[in-house]
Amino acid sequence: MSAVNPHVSVDCVILGFDGVQLNVLLLKRTGKEGTERFNDLKLPGSLIYAEENLDEAAQRVLSELFTTNSIYLKQFKTFGSPDRTGNPRDVGWLENAVKLKIDRIVTVCYLSLIRIDDKLKFKSDQVEAIWSPLPEKRKLAFDHNQLLQEALAEVRNFVTVNPALVFNLLPKKFTAAQMRMLFEQIFGQKMDVRNFHKKMCRMDYVVELNEREKDVAHRAARLYRFDRKLYLKFNGGFN
Amino acid sequence: MSAVNPHVSVDCVILGFDGVQLNVLLLKRTGKEGTERFNDLKLPGSLIYAEENLDEAAQRVLSELFTTNSIYLKQFKTFGSPDRTGNPRDVGWLENAVKLKIDRIVTVCYLSLIRIDDKLKFKSDQVEAIWSPLPEKRKLAFDHNQLLQEALAEVRNFVTVNPALVFNLLPKKFTAAQMRMLFEQIFGQKMDVRNFHKKMCRMDYVVELNEREKDVAHRAARLYRFDRKLYLKFNGGFN
Repeated sequence: MSAVNPHVSVDCVILGFDGVQLNVLLLKRTGKEGTERFNDLKLPGSLIYAEENLDEAAQRVLSELFTTNSIYLKQFKTFGSPDRTGNPRDVGWLENAVKLKIDRIVTVCYLSLIRIDDKLKFKSDQVEAIWSPLPEKRKLAFDHNQLLQEALAEVRNFVTVNPALVFNLLPKKFTAAQMRMLFEQIFGQKMDVRNFHKKMCRMDYVVELNEREKDVAHRAARLYRFDRKLYLKFNGGFN
Repeated sequence: MSAVNPHVSVDCVILGFDGVQLNVLLLKRTGKEGTERFNDLKLPGSLIYAEENLDEAAQRVLSELFTTNSIYLKQFKTFGSPDRTGNPRDVGWLENAVKLKIDRIVTVCYLSLIRIDDKLKFKSDQVEAIWSPLPEKRKLAFDHNQLLQEALAEVRNFVTVNPALVFNLLPKKFTAAQMRMLFEQIFGQKMDVRNFHKKMCRMDYVVELNEREKDVAHRAARLYRFDRKLYLKFNGGFN
């Protein structure tokens, strides 16, 4: 066995909720495999640059996509199997993109949670990005399907012990149905409306507002907001 | 800015509790800096080998140390600042050890929690390993002080939301005082004996046994055990 000299990249699983649908941000990729052109999708990412640390590289990937830089970003796992570069299409595409000989790539995976609203803007129309509804069923570049699956598992674990995370995804003022739909999509299963509402009522940090939805076709539903101070008070933990 | 071609390593923060003291496993390192010989300490680690994935590399580091391979092991964070190789002593030592030119090293950090008891054996007397009591106040190699600090923060976070982790460290049968001492060392602060006991009693999965300590000079204390089934029952989470 001998030591290797791999390249290191960051990849970002950016999950966004638009009030109805949970999505992952994917970038269009085009390339050539032999004489055939292909079009497929990948997670946003980049090899790391000489002067930057890992968080800075991930932040750079986000800042090349969005005008805002106040996005929740968390390193969650590093993937380094030799199999990551098992597909010649991926290796060929990357070697052409970065003009480097690529053998093995270890990628540090980041998780971002975004509220998709009017304030969220792509930096440029040039960005070939799409919000793709989950569950994602297409074959993505490299091992990006696995990265996405593990990111979702991370969100599920985290939400199970610390539900505060989901409020990064929900609108500032949200309905019970929106919160339930988000949980259903995170956990990949339908939830009983009444049971969910009971659980929600037990969350002292989900505060009922004296407001209802506006401009909706159906009966306007009650709005709620997340109170972070109350959350921290009730969830100070063991200590 | 240009892409770089760093080396990738794994480092293991192995925490061990001997029933009284929380320790970190450190390896002795000797080298030469200029004409001066030096002796200091480092976390166990290794560059990754060509055929292995990251978990396998970390598992190999553990298996080179211990006879057992049933040790809790979890990837927790990757460190990749260019400053990691800012100290010529570290670079010189590593280049000499691996016979490679080293520029930058991205290291994938693993956390292990070990019960130090009669069953735990080092693989060989040749291993220059020491259990070093925490808090560790010496300057370790590379950024290993930071890795250790962040590993402890990870344990604190994890224990706050999921106390089950600590039972990997405690003896199978433990006293209330042992559990309190472990928490005190994890959180770095004294805890009130009576308050701690109350919290412990509220943990339905900490089961009081009809047994007391044996062969102790002081009054033999009641023993407890962790019931994982009960834990999972009471802590199924949101879903």
